[in-house]
Amino acid sequence: MPTILGQNQYGKAENRVVKITRDGDTHHIKDLNVSVALSGDMDDVHYSGSNANCLPTDTTKNTVYAFAKEHGIESAEQFGIHLARWFVNSQEPIQRARIRIEEYAWDRIPTSDANSKFIGSDEVKHSFVRQGQETRVTQVTYDGTNWEVISGLKDLVVMNSTNSEFWGYVKDKYTTLKEAYDRILATQVSARWRFNWSDDEQRMPNWEKSYAETRKHMLEAFAETYSLSLQQTLYQMGSRIINHRSEIDEVRFSLPNKHHFLVDLEPFGLKNDNEVYFAADRPYGLIEATVLRDGVDARIPVDMTNL
Amino acid sequence: MPTILGQNQYGKAENRVVKITRDGDTHHIKDLNVSVALSGDMDDVHYSGSNANCLPTDTTKNTVYAFAKEHGIESAEQFGIHLARWFVNSQEPIQRARIRIEEYAWDRIPTSDANSKFIGSDEVKHSFVRQGQETRVTQVTYDGTNWEVISGLKDLVVMNSTNSEFWGYVKDKYTTLKEAYDRILATQVSARWRFNWSDDEQRMPNWEKSYAETRKHMLEAFAETYSLSLQQTLYQMGSRIINHRSEIDEVRFSLPNKHHFLVDLEPFGLKNDNEVYFAADRPYGLIEATVLRDGVDARIPVDMTNL
Amino acid sequence: MPTILGQNQYGKAENRVVKITRDGDTHHIKDLNVSVALSGDMDDVHYSGSNANCLPTDTTKNTVYAFAKEHGIESAEQFGIHLARWFVNSQEPIQRARIRIEEYAWDRIPTSDANSKFIGSDEVKHSFVRQGQETRVTQVTYDGTNWEVISGLKDLVVMNSTNSEFWGYVKDKYTTLKEAYDRILATQVSARWRFNWSDDEQRMPNWEKSYAETRKHMLEAFAETYSLSLQQTLYQMGSRIINHRSEIDEVRFSLPNKHHFLVDLEPFGLKNDNEVYFAADRPYGLIEATVLRDGVDARIPVDMTNL
Amino acid sequence: MPTILGQNQYGKAENRVVKITRDGDTHHIKDLNVSVALSGDMDDVHYSGSNANCLPTDTTKNTVYAFAKEHGIESAEQFGIHLARWFVNSQEPIQRARIRIEEYAWDRIPTSDANSKFIGSDEVKHSFVRQGQETRVTQVTYDGTNWEVISGLKDLVVMNSTNSEFWGYVKDKYTTLKEAYDRILATQVSARWRFNWSDDEQRMPNWEKSYAETRKHMLEAFAETYSLSLQQTLYQMGSRIINHRSEIDEVRFSLPNKHHFLVDLEPFGLKNDNEVYFAADRPYGLIEATVLRDGVDARIPVDMTNL
Repeated sequence: MPTILGQNQYGKAENRVVKITRDGDTHHIKDLNVSVALSGDMDDVHYSGSNANCLPTDTTKNTVYAFAKEHGIESAEQFGIHLARWFVNSQEPIQRARIRIEEYAWDRIPTSDANSKFIGSDEVKHSFVRQGQETRVTQVTYDGTNWEVISGLKDLVVMNSTNSEFWGYVKDKYTTLKEAYDRILATQVSARWRFNWSDDEQRMPNWEKSYAETRKHMLEAFAETYSLSLQQTLYQMGSRIINHRSEIDEVRFSLPNKHHFLVDLEPFGLKNDNEVYFAADRPYGLIEATVLRDGVDARIPVDMTNL
Repeated sequence: MPTILGQNQYGKAENRVVKITRDGDTHHIKDLNVSVALSGDMDDVHYSGSNANCLPTDTTKNTVYAFAKEHGIESAEQFGIHLARWFVNSQEPIQRARIRIEEYAWDRIPTSDANSKFIGSDEVKHSFVRQGQETRVTQVTYDGTNWEVISGLKDLVVMNSTNSEFWGYVKDKYTTLKEAYDRILATQVSARWRFNWSDDEQRMPNWEKSYAETRKHMLEAFAETYSLSLQQTLYQMGSRIINHRSEIDEVRFSLPNKHHFLVDLEPFGLKNDNEVYFAADRPYGLIEATVLRDGVDARIPVDMTNL
Repeated sequence: MPTILGQNQYGKAENRVVKITRDGDTHHIKDLNVSVALSGDMDDVHYSGSNANCLPTDTTKNTVYAFAKEHGIESAEQFGIHLARWFVNSQEPIQRARIRIEEYAWDRIPTSDANSKFIGSDEVKHSFVRQGQETRVTQVTYDGTNWEVISGLKDLVVMNSTNSEFWGYVKDKYTTLKEAYDRILATQVSARWRFNWSDDEQRMPNWEKSYAETRKHMLEAFAETYSLSLQQTLYQMGSRIINHRSEIDEVRFSLPNKHHFLVDLEPFGLKNDNEVYFAADRPYGLIEATVLRDGVDARIPVDMTNL
Repeated sequence: MPTILGQNQYGKAENRVVKITRDGDTHHIKDLNVSVALSGDMDDVHYSGSNANCLPTDTTKNTVYAFAKEHGIESAEQFGIHLARWFVNSQEPIQRARIRIEEYAWDRIPTSDANSKFIGSDEVKHSFVRQGQETRVTQVTYDGTNWEVISGLKDLVVMNSTNSEFWGYVKDKYTTLKEAYDRILATQVSARWRFNWSDDEQRMPNWEKSYAETRKHMLEAFAETYSLSLQQTLYQMGSRIINHRSEIDEVRFSLPNKHHFLVDLEPFGLKNDNEVYFAADRPYGLIEATVLRDGVDARIPVDMTNL
């Protein structure tokens, strides 16, 4: 046989599960999109179509919904850990499970003044509005021994309207760009961070708190860095996380430079004093890098942040 | 000539303009997507290709950017009014202008504790993060005499996790749906409301305040209505607006019923006590209606809310 | 009651139905996305939440699938007619039905030479590949007496690499555009055409043939028109249809001018002789107009073509 | 310094370039979306914001357009090779260039009969319509010594309406799926194949012919395989390519199983004899695997096919 099978994985992708937890009249919501990918002893299903080792993708879907009831959804990470452990431990041929989860956040809807007197609360306890632009993500991988948890976010759009410069760069025969001493810096953050928790003997991080704090440090670093390049800002965002969050060893960013070009208003006899910008779509600069704790190995794949 | 020209309009669509206003160190941002559509004496450009009456779409784009400097952007509605007035009044062949604007909202990024002592503020005065899921929209139309302003929003995703029922409906030979006495009600609101301001002699509404209040009433009505049908909830949302906002005469909604189906967990020996739901994509119920002040004429087009 | 209900409609949107018809070994496929919108005596469901007149949207979904079996899918238009007639005629409170359908086209996959000898055909009789970029659409409306059928397409992307000019236009204080004597003209056609078939006594058009011929005339007119403005091209496309297809009385187009800008290569010592273009995303010119048979009334809504 | 910089790359993404080549009256078109990613001696730009080694992303954009003129666009692969070689060879600090290109295909528009007599051709020589659903892609990587070219396609949607079964799989406590002996098999192919051409001494493949033949073999294998699992079909598609195209050593697929569920029509007294299907969106099975020539190393990253 001149051809052979290489790396392979399968499962059900994008299982949309919403879990409501009732604490008296107060409801809590977890809203996830769960994708399962399993690997193992799967040569026969590829070579001959024998499904003897193949747990149907439909079953992996059912498991997601059943586990939402059986284990609840404490956090996306914890839910992924339950699922990955189950698939690897319950099925002999499955040697590795990768669970990817997107989480959508919700805020509570405030109550009208008239109603708040009546219900004794300033929020409707079962009413929600989708929060923010960004999506929280996590990927949990388990091979029966070791865990790898990579969490992050995507589509977090941020902008500094000053404190950004770009000059002193290489100029070759194709260079026409003018140096900038005060520009808008805007990007749509895609970030992934890897936890150093890797086996069941270690104490597990507080996933919810870790996410909130990591996001906060990242945003603060973006806002507080006086930027000479988007690369420098990226590095500050990453090192701020590594320095403040001991549970995280590695961060990777994919940062599109969402260009805001000053519009030339001189043809109309007007001066544009850093006021009026054209927000461009394409092309865009794309800056990608890993920042990691000194001494650890990088393991977040290069392509993972721009999925 | 057996064929003739009917309604026609042209202009530059989706001009992305960002305006930064500097109030000392504190920056303010307006982030718009402006689309211009002009109508008038345009037969020749269609019949013969003579452009003698045709102001280029490129010029309409330039005007958007120049006006951001000349008039500033107080609100999307006010900016649209400046533009519509200009096109109709400055060009003889142009008899009608329709300006559509999307506005993207931004929040300020909080400062880290360390930095807030230093800068004496708990927000970075030039740093922003995109807010929420929804997009604010407006459409301003002017024919040289009368104004029509229709504002609204789209992509506002809301959910009630209880206080929704659906029963007592018609059952024909194709009906299999089971009645529901406690279901999730979720929708992605697209709404448009028409102001009764229509000529320059009237006092103009406070557009920014009107938007904030209208959105608040709509959300509150969604949350506080015990719902027997999404149609009923829609009507409550609309009438709450009409009753509280005297500047608005008409509201139209397009509300997809984003179905959350209870997952059947019985095959796994589990009871699903309104806890675990499958969030479905397609198909979805689609409920659309106009609610208007008694005695006024409806003018928001049927198709406008599901654009 | 200071507020009242205006136009309203409801139903199940985006029912994805695929119908396989087997003609011996040769399979035929119809792949539709069907949206149902019903109107009538629906005040109570809005005012009080009484569903006594309300056929569930779930039932309208079931009807779509049942009708695919009971009536087959001869064409999108014919299928819409079956559905609209059923809803209006079978339910007293329903006075008007609007069925919107998107149709996705498929080609057959050619067979390998080795296999074609074996199966005696140069196509695999049950194997298909999605065809083209465009989506065929139709909207059928019925009120118990009269029919209105508006068909069309969207996302048909076309380009002329020459035979397009743009000059002689109005120049005001914001005009900077340079006249063009040889430019690329590209657009993404959204078109809707209205049939004059309107009651059951008239002979029904051949919907499949009409679509193929209308599309052909439209494409030919785009290609063969030496264009002085996109408006002129639009009018030629419309009048070619009206002149060749007696079953069609009215056409409406929404044509984004997908700008291809000549790149300035002079800074690099190169001459760009209409060779290298930047294909821009936003903003874009947007040209919209109706072309109709002399003497008929226009009925396609202004907003319908840019949905 | 407790944090360090890991893998990093930067450049301008999504440069949309259209190249028109004129062969007398007959025009040819190449329509590309080119993304540049450069790596090398870039520590300073991250650590201190010094741009001394940084060729601006704007310059990489200019280079794309200048090269379209200077070298033409013979094929996406050849164009990527010109660009990658230039960046690595012309700039000391740049040690690796990765060029990703999407290519959009166009067909010629046929001429009307009337016109074809006049122009002596059955096609308008400068008029085009976008072809098909799929996008051709390539990625060229160069480190100054070795080349890696990975080409492929995405969004090629295919369906077999029979000759697909799925049974004999593992059944655990969460399994409810019924075995299928005649089902629809549909997928949206994302495929990447790696060429064994890796240095300038080797003879370069004919990139255009290779693409056309590889696509053909892949489609034929999909159509002609009697499928017991999508994994088996995937393997047949991959091995057909490896067996027929000696220039290719490795193929990776990401195949979503686009489920078409038989609709239960029994509640309506109808029998569904493999005729009426519901085309589901989410969740979907996702089957991913590499097929490679025996004896070669796999190098296509696991995540690359589902970008």
